[in-house]
Amino acid sequence: MTATLPSHEVAAGVTTWLSAFGDALSAGDTAAAAALFTEDCFWRDLVAFTWNIKTLEGRAAISAMLDETLPWVQPRGWKITHGEEPAGAGGVVEAWIDFETAAGRGHGHLRLRDGRCWTLLTTLDELKGHEERRGPNRPKGVERRANPARTTWLEDREQEASELGITEQPYVVIIGGGQAGIGLGARLRQLRVPTIIIDKRSRPGDQWRSRYKSLCLHDPVWYDHMPYLKFPDNWPVFSPKDKIADWLESYTKIMELNYWPDTEATSAAYDEEAGQWAVQVERDGELLVLRPAQLVLATGMSGRPSLPAFPGMDTFRGDQHHSSAHPGPGRYRGKRCVVIGSNNSAFDICGALWENGADVTMVQRSSTHIVRSATLMDIGLGALYSEEAVASGMTTDKADMVFASIPYRIMHHFQIPLYEQMRERDQEFYDRLEAAGFEHDWGDDGSGLFMKYLRRGSGYYIDVGAADLVANGDVALARGQVDRLAEDAVVLEDGTKLPADLVVYATGYQSMNGWAAELISQEVADKVGKCWGLGSDTTKDPGPWEGEQRNMWKPTQQQALWFHGGNLHQSRHYSLYLALQLKARQAGLPTPVYGLQEVHHLR
Amino acid sequence: MTATLPSHEVAAGVTTWLSAFGDALSAGDTAAAAALFTEDCFWRDLVAFTWNIKTLEGRAAISAMLDETLPWVQPRGWKITHGEEPAGAGGVVEAWIDFETAAGRGHGHLRLRDGRCWTLLTTLDELKGHEERRGPNRPKGVERRANPARTTWLEDREQEASELGITEQPYVVIIGGGQAGIGLGARLRQLRVPTIIIDKRSRPGDQWRSRYKSLCLHDPVWYDHMPYLKFPDNWPVFSPKDKIADWLESYTKIMELNYWPDTEATSAAYDEEAGQWAVQVERDGELLVLRPAQLVLATGMSGRPSLPAFPGMDTFRGDQHHSSAHPGPGRYRGKRCVVIGSNNSAFDICGALWENGADVTMVQRSSTHIVRSATLMDIGLGALYSEEAVASGMTTDKADMVFASIPYRIMHHFQIPLYEQMRERDQEFYDRLEAAGFEHDWGDDGSGLFMKYLRRGSGYYIDVGAADLVANGDVALARGQVDRLAEDAVVLEDGTKLPADLVVYATGYQSMNGWAAELISQEVADKVGKCWGLGSDTTKDPGPWEGEQRNMWKPTQQQALWFHGGNLHQSRHYSLYLALQLKARQAGLPTPVYGLQEVHHLR
Repeated sequence: MTATLPSHEVAAGVTTWLSAFGDALSAGDTAAAAALFTEDCFWRDLVAFTWNIKTLEGRAAISAMLDETLPWVQPRGWKITHGEEPAGAGGVVEAWIDFETAAGRGHGHLRLRDGRCWTLLTTLDELKGHEERRGPNRPKGVERRANPARTTWLEDREQEASELGITEQPYVVIIGGGQAGIGLGARLRQLRVPTIIIDKRSRPGDQWRSRYKSLCLHDPVWYDHMPYLKFPDNWPVFSPKDKIADWLESYTKIMELNYWPDTEATSAAYDEEAGQWAVQVERDGELLVLRPAQLVLATGMSGRPSLPAFPGMDTFRGDQHHSSAHPGPGRYRGKRCVVIGSNNSAFDICGALWENGADVTMVQRSSTHIVRSATLMDIGLGALYSEEAVASGMTTDKADMVFASIPYRIMHHFQIPLYEQMRERDQEFYDRLEAAGFEHDWGDDGSGLFMKYLRRGSGYYIDVGAADLVANGDVALARGQVDRLAEDAVVLEDGTKLPADLVVYATGYQSMNGWAAELISQEVADKVGKCWGLGSDTTKDPGPWEGEQRNMWKPTQQQALWFHGGNLHQSRHYSLYLALQLKARQAGLPTPVYGLQEVHHLR
Repeated sequence: MTATLPSHEVAAGVTTWLSAFGDALSAGDTAAAAALFTEDCFWRDLVAFTWNIKTLEGRAAISAMLDETLPWVQPRGWKITHGEEPAGAGGVVEAWIDFETAAGRGHGHLRLRDGRCWTLLTTLDELKGHEERRGPNRPKGVERRANPARTTWLEDREQEASELGITEQPYVVIIGGGQAGIGLGARLRQLRVPTIIIDKRSRPGDQWRSRYKSLCLHDPVWYDHMPYLKFPDNWPVFSPKDKIADWLESYTKIMELNYWPDTEATSAAYDEEAGQWAVQVERDGELLVLRPAQLVLATGMSGRPSLPAFPGMDTFRGDQHHSSAHPGPGRYRGKRCVVIGSNNSAFDICGALWENGADVTMVQRSSTHIVRSATLMDIGLGALYSEEAVASGMTTDKADMVFASIPYRIMHHFQIPLYEQMRERDQEFYDRLEAAGFEHDWGDDGSGLFMKYLRRGSGYYIDVGAADLVANGDVALARGQVDRLAEDAVVLEDGTKLPADLVVYATGYQSMNGWAAELISQEVADKVGKCWGLGSDTTKDPGPWEGEQRNMWKPTQQQALWFHGGNLHQSRHYSLYLALQLKARQAGLPTPVYGLQEVHHLR
């Protein structure tokens, strides 16, 4: 098929394929179903078939999955999504599809090549009998008859707040009340899963308020919507941190979440017999035990500071802190500041320090990838998340699904050409950076920022101006490893001495299973293994190949323990699948997990 | 033209008319322009031509208006709105249109009959050079270059809060921070008009929180959206009062309004020379004077209680209060409660008292119109404000415009058939009510609830169950006028004695110009005259005919004094036109008001 086929023929090709596929599945003929795929095929399933987040690669993997799952999934009703016309271009036909299973309703995306399926995405949207109360199904809010037993909305809310976690146990406890935790909390509330979100800070949004004052989101507004409630169209493209903080605080209230501020979890243990966690928490100074069936760690993929241990740190006389604890530049005017690191936080902090009249040196220890913000928006995100995308009918939900439809194994092929365009557009900028001695890269295979993010969660800066300060020397650049701290300086391995009143360790974050070590035990942390990364065998993402991000939003080796997080896009989209997994368990539905990941790395 | 015309002919007819109309206007030929209208024509203008809210009735009124306004309005560019196909049915062709003027851009709606214009709606959308920063024009939120003079969003907000009203004077002061005041405040902020909203209560939303506990909005969610930020699709159809209160509180924060809680205006005077108000306020106990150029009273069309003066009220030994001060039924279990009145508040309060085990009597003093909530939703609002309307592509903005396109003079013709349908659907219900002795009506001309609302703002109940309590005798019904209060009873003119531990005066509200009397002077209140009502010469809406609601959202006889309010739909829609009027004055644009209303009634 080519782009020149008339649209009814394109649609007919899709219908033919769906029909053959549906027939093979109904007949339980997994070999016939697999034969409908290309040799180099991918089937990505988000919870619909596998009760897992899983990409099957190749026909054999697909038929093996079907052999195991078909009997209970019972998929049927495969059809083109109403109102979405399949389109063909470059020999690939793309279509949006709907289907259902015994347990629920789903939709997905299909790419056909020569009449066979190259990529298939299947996602679960809702569980039958547990649909969300939205749109036509929304609550009435008032009972249209006199009723002496009537309680008001406020009374109901107050009763719930006084009982949940005290006399009634929640089904889920989410530790961490940032955007990930409250987005998931909103979904669980919609699904009527009793949930408590705990956070050690005093107000929702304090996770952002407490950061350095110049911080703004690096992703644009279209990428950052929360579930259910979109930012209004007067929202800035890049949210200032205090504005997004206020939004999250309002969101928590509007979504009627059971959010416990000033609450810290001190330990947690799972009782296999009882199928229940015992989570010790200190709430406003009071100790109590929560006993949820499920525990979600939403404490941040960039939440556990990775602090280096340089000799001399204990005797350094100036200020020193991890980037996450940096208070902002206010007190450092005229001071000598050394920032160790050359990724996002390092650049943001260097820029703000320079703006406030500090004498700033950045220490680059390894190569960094930089993309200018405007360029990234135009070339990297423009088609899916931009004002133009909105104008052309691209909704956030659809953009999320398009993104999800691309298998991780081949995603870099889609990314490389975009970064080649970016390089071309900003060649002069990169030339200046390199002339200044900055070590710049485009990722191991030239696939750029987003692949770095998915593989290692580090190694890049989205430039909003600070790169120019390095290029033009306003921020001094030192390259090399740190040997030690003197009482008043950072000393590099080559002997360079960088006098310092302040040292900022912009040295990144540890894997999220470290949270499990802290809260539960090292044993459980090792049992679930490293979080994040694809096993791409590129820098800081060791193999073997996983096909999906480790441990995120899906079952782990520790029963009833889940990890949730990522950027706003991921938190928004994957919170749906995590919420459905939790709801299914609460509702007592069978949830046999296909292909539970093995553990290859501990951190 | 009929419904059977092909769509391109329908469109051609509209284009032909627009072209002739545009030519006549460009040539300044007001007679030719007027001749393009039918004999029984209407032109409703919202600020675009008249800097007023004005309906011109008949050709002579239209040409007179054009004679005066054309020279400075300079309208042009009349065309069918892109993507909106004109439609014909029943001999009437309807079309959405765009145009511009010297000052701004507008859109509107057209109804043609036999090639002539029967109804024209023109509205101003935005002022050139003062467009809102939304969508493609939204703020960036971050500056993409290092800048030592950078201030953060939070610093800017804090600076504004510390200066506005203290060292910097706002251009507008809005008194009253309910949904009307904050909706207007949001629009003014978008238009960069420095504004302070003051309210005597402690938190935005307290206007709702302080009402009786069973209160829910009687209008459905699709009717109730605020500007810019829509309710999410999990929002209940009828908002419970505390939930809408929380929403308004979040809204105030999200829209970055300068909202002064715990602030009461004690007096205001206009200095003609200085073109400035002196508004005395007490803020958190501190006295200060605000000096805005414009003063908006948004204190509620149902804000000033109308309390009767019955003999014996001073010696009645039980509780007595106006419905607006009713605390809810909690303390009246087993008590004898008499509610005087038979409209919305009376029914709501009777129902809640009965549900809480009180012995309740309603005193009906005059005929009331009742419509069941579900019926009103289905038949009265369904086409414009419902889940079905949303599904069929009817946006809130469009629904507002459709509603605005119907001239008040003939609106009852559109309403009467709807209420006939409602009567038919619920005949059994009305039979039961009447059998119980309840005096029911459908408005003077059978046009039902919404016309009663527009004409007199009273005289009806949207039934959510309490009418059945009256029909079946659970709530006792007494009819007649109140003669006096005894120490322990309400005594009617016919001698009936209704023993009472509680008397609730559900006796309605006074005209909004009473606020001006309280705050400014009786002289100014009389100068501007009665607010609300159309002059329809029906019960409680004395003539002469006004064509628009008196004094609402438009210039009054008192320079720089404005009234804003109405239900959520009106507050949302008309806040745009009021905001544009205020912005134009702030920007120093000429704003000659055509056809300023005369005053015929003082209250």
